[in-house]
Amino acid sequence: MKWTLLAVGRVMPPPIRELVEEYGDRLRHFIPLRLESVAEEKRDKNVTPRLAMEREGQRLRSRCPATAWIVALDGSGQSWSSLELSRQVEQWIQAGHSEVVFVIGGPDGLDPVFKSSAHQILSLGPMTYPHMLVRVLILEQLYRAMTLLRGVPYHR
Amino acid sequence: MKWTLLAVGRVMPPPIRELVEEYGDRLRHFIPLRLESVAEEKRDKNVTPRLAMEREGQRLRSRCPATAWIVALDGSGQSWSSLELSRQVEQWIQAGHSEVVFVIGGPDGLDPVFKSSAHQILSLGPMTYPHMLVRVLILEQLYRAMTLLRGVPYHR
Repeated sequence: MKWTLLAVGRVMPPPIRELVEEYGDRLRHFIPLRLESVAEEKRDKNVTPRLAMEREGQRLRSRCPATAWIVALDGSGQSWSSLELSRQVEQWIQAGHSEVVFVIGGPDGLDPVFKSSAHQILSLGPMTYPHMLVRVLILEQLYRAMTLLRGVPYHR
Repeated sequence: MKWTLLAVGRVMPPPIRELVEEYGDRLRHFIPLRLESVAEEKRDKNVTPRLAMEREGQRLRSRCPATAWIVALDGSGQSWSSLELSRQVEQWIQAGHSEVVFVIGGPDGLDPVFKSSAHQILSLGPMTYPHMLVRVLILEQLYRAMTLLRGVPYHR
């Protein structure tokens, strides 16, 4: 199994990029991981947030392999504790998925059409976080899940 | 009213420090904010995590003004959406607290004795995050709460 983090927005602010690299590197000790992104659609008077989200959703869709298991990150989804997430990771492994793709929307969130086509929707809790920070949080949680699953200490 | 973020651990990793400064500066457009810390207790064979937490809790307590409203950040607390947090902020303002102190524990969490003496316990959701990252998350959420309360756009 390999994992892909697929997100909207090509350029991360430097401290976000550093944290994404940090947790990405830690996660790669356990599982092959790719970090992918699609361009953010520019919002202006002709491009509403809704239309922008739709275009971003199409770009995201075009980058999801047909055989991959798609997990959308969205506040409407199921909220898991870190331990529950580690059990979910175990289930993905047992289900024999060749690839799991974690998908994060843009500044206005994830396109509803994309969301409805995802296999699962995962929420990071009731609070709304900036989409760039969500990359850090999901990578940290997946790293934490792997340490729980393998019974190794969480590196501080 | 002024706010204080009081946390265990004097030295932040550089990308965390940058994000704390970023959201701290944004928050200061709305409200006076101080960032304070106490030393992390070193864990070794004579100092168990439990004892270390207790000592950290005493240090935190000694830095909380008697008249301040103490909000502990802990997974055992109440979980709020960003909108609910903004309503809570409004209540703190209306209650006339001169100072609200948001308290974050160390690597093993927050001392139970300190926790039981806090006025409120706030959870960031069911997932466990590293204590350093919690500083970023609570500042971002407080900034978001202030934008909601004042009806100004969230700066992306």
